[in-house]
Amino acid sequence: MLAPPFPIELPSLLIDERICRKNIRRMLQKAKANQLILRPHFKTHHSVEIGRWFREEGVQAITCSSLLMAEHFASDDWQDITVAFPVNVLEMDRINRLAAKIQLQVLVEATESLDALEKELKHPVGAFVKIDVGAGRSGILWDDTAAIDQLVQRLAHSPKVQFKGFLTHAGHSYKSRDRSTVQTIYQQTSTRLQALKDRHQSNWPHLILSAGDTPCFSQLDHFVELDEIRPGNFVFYDLMQEQIGSCTFDDIALVLACPVVARHAHRQELVLYGGAVHFSKEYILRADGSKNFGRLAEWTEGGWSPLPEDNYLRAVSQEHGLLKVTPSVFSQLSVGSVVPILPIHSCLSANLMPHYHALDGQRISK
Amino acid sequence: MLAPPFPIELPSLLIDERICRKNIRRMLQKAKANQLILRPHFKTHHSVEIGRWFREEGVQAITCSSLLMAEHFASDDWQDITVAFPVNVLEMDRINRLAAKIQLQVLVEATESLDALEKELKHPVGAFVKIDVGAGRSGILWDDTAAIDQLVQRLAHSPKVQFKGFLTHAGHSYKSRDRSTVQTIYQQTSTRLQALKDRHQSNWPHLILSAGDTPCFSQLDHFVELDEIRPGNFVFYDLMQEQIGSCTFDDIALVLACPVVARHAHRQELVLYGGAVHFSKEYILRADGSKNFGRLAEWTEGGWSPLPEDNYLRAVSQEHGLLKVTPSVFSQLSVGSVVPILPIHSCLSANLMPHYHALDGQRISK
Repeated sequence: MLAPPFPIELPSLLIDERICRKNIRRMLQKAKANQLILRPHFKTHHSVEIGRWFREEGVQAITCSSLLMAEHFASDDWQDITVAFPVNVLEMDRINRLAAKIQLQVLVEATESLDALEKELKHPVGAFVKIDVGAGRSGILWDDTAAIDQLVQRLAHSPKVQFKGFLTHAGHSYKSRDRSTVQTIYQQTSTRLQALKDRHQSNWPHLILSAGDTPCFSQLDHFVELDEIRPGNFVFYDLMQEQIGSCTFDDIALVLACPVVARHAHRQELVLYGGAVHFSKEYILRADGSKNFGRLAEWTEGGWSPLPEDNYLRAVSQEHGLLKVTPSVFSQLSVGSVVPILPIHSCLSANLMPHYHALDGQRISK
Repeated sequence: MLAPPFPIELPSLLIDERICRKNIRRMLQKAKANQLILRPHFKTHHSVEIGRWFREEGVQAITCSSLLMAEHFASDDWQDITVAFPVNVLEMDRINRLAAKIQLQVLVEATESLDALEKELKHPVGAFVKIDVGAGRSGILWDDTAAIDQLVQRLAHSPKVQFKGFLTHAGHSYKSRDRSTVQTIYQQTSTRLQALKDRHQSNWPHLILSAGDTPCFSQLDHFVELDEIRPGNFVFYDLMQEQIGSCTFDDIALVLACPVVARHAHRQELVLYGGAVHFSKEYILRADGSKNFGRLAEWTEGGWSPLPEDNYLRAVSQEHGLLKVTPSVFSQLSVGSVVPILPIHSCLSANLMPHYHALDGQRISK
């Protein structure tokens, strides 16, 4: 087996920039073909430097999951940021600092949040009404038109909070494992949002319908009902998205490189320096119902390539990963080898790690 | 309901120092009563400041889970550190820097690791042979005496690597949910280690038997078979340890304070700013088989107190927590409230968060 592309001594996140840029361009082309704004979610990478790759490819507006993250990217001159999380009214100082500097959009779903914004805002902010189209996480239920109308009505008379449109995250698409389910979820999502647009468009001719999950926008091609899409994970993808059907292995742009610290022949397992504090505890299920916390790949000349699926992380504890491997792989790896592991959920691994490395060994900061 | 003890605007880890110190003292007393060294695992808190609480209570030797962590604590003048993780031979520079400065112990289970140490060590280090007493994670199987004897034999002739004894982590005790299982696991552990001591003590009269899990050393009282214990989680405890039976709710020394950002009456749920990037994705199972990612408490004059068990986090995504509550709790909380949540696994929450706060609002750095 080949050695890693540069000397590695600690668990390290390696990024293939070429794959990232290909993923960004593919999503941009899809957005253009549907005349949509692509407002990618930057929580996946949280990196100023990777953010610049998006900018170089033509992205101008972004999504963040917290006001803290919005501050991070505003400091690198991102001027148009939506914080796609129910607005935290305890952070009014931060909201005011951001709104003084950039075009900030927040999400409202509670009238109490609007009360607080109206009372304390010093600069205008845009507001999307968050709609729950079926994911059951946050937002006003799509069919609770009384509550939605009431909030839109309030926004119509708000001097500082400008109504922008309806925003949703069809997070239930992450539970799908086939394209037809994803198609059904998208149709339901777009129909439900479209009904809200029809209801309010006469008063708000420019209102925006914004939706945001990676499975729908990776697997499908036609989104003419929407105005804006906010996928995030697609820049890296991961094993979960591969299992959902959103990408192929060739689209996965990052691996966690892990040192082998022990070998156990009697159970054909390797102990890796790489555990829950590097991967998170996210898992997918294997065909037999057992858990898979990551999949082994091998280094190639230009990056890495996945090994057969019976080479996988069967368990992680805080720093340890237990890698089940086939006999031929077992015989090729020794203590001191460094192996690439495809992560289950790239957003969580990226959040846990302090920085990335490019394939040439250069550090990519957050 | 009372407000939090000081103004909080972001998800924040709050520590009750009084409970921490009580937990530390209780474990120290247990160690003394059994004439054992308490070498607590500092991966749980990873904090120089909390480390000093241990020192003030009389602790002199510690355990870390990585060489990086050992460097962190060596910088605060901890002079005797065991890195309880199979030695990563790719970090020889770090090992040499540490060994020049402190009394460092590492774990060996592979002869290749010993080869690398012997070749590159510039200063003496202590070595424990890692034994798998049944957890199936790392270490040589307790009954593979041929492999164990071979390693001890090698160590006997090593000029720089000094054999210290046998070390294990009975991690399978975390799966227990009753005291008699924990008792059985401890008996098995101590019997298996004792057999190794009997086998080697004539040549190594000072060899140390070291074991390290929080459930055994919290629930049981007599450990005369051992020489050293290395529990870590006991300083904070958490819901998992409460479910295992290692502590009561009164012993849990930390909560994650989370802002309420939305309320959904139709499902009696609150949306919290507090998700997988604050709690991790660790969960325990409720009686009905559903997942529990954290439990709601309420603020009291001196800290917090748990609310009934049907007030719990039923799901977490990256930044969101979905808190299921009873009608009376629902009616008392609003957008902008800040609620204390008892975490499932304090080590992972502590790892995810940048720092802590004491109950008086003072920041406790890592």
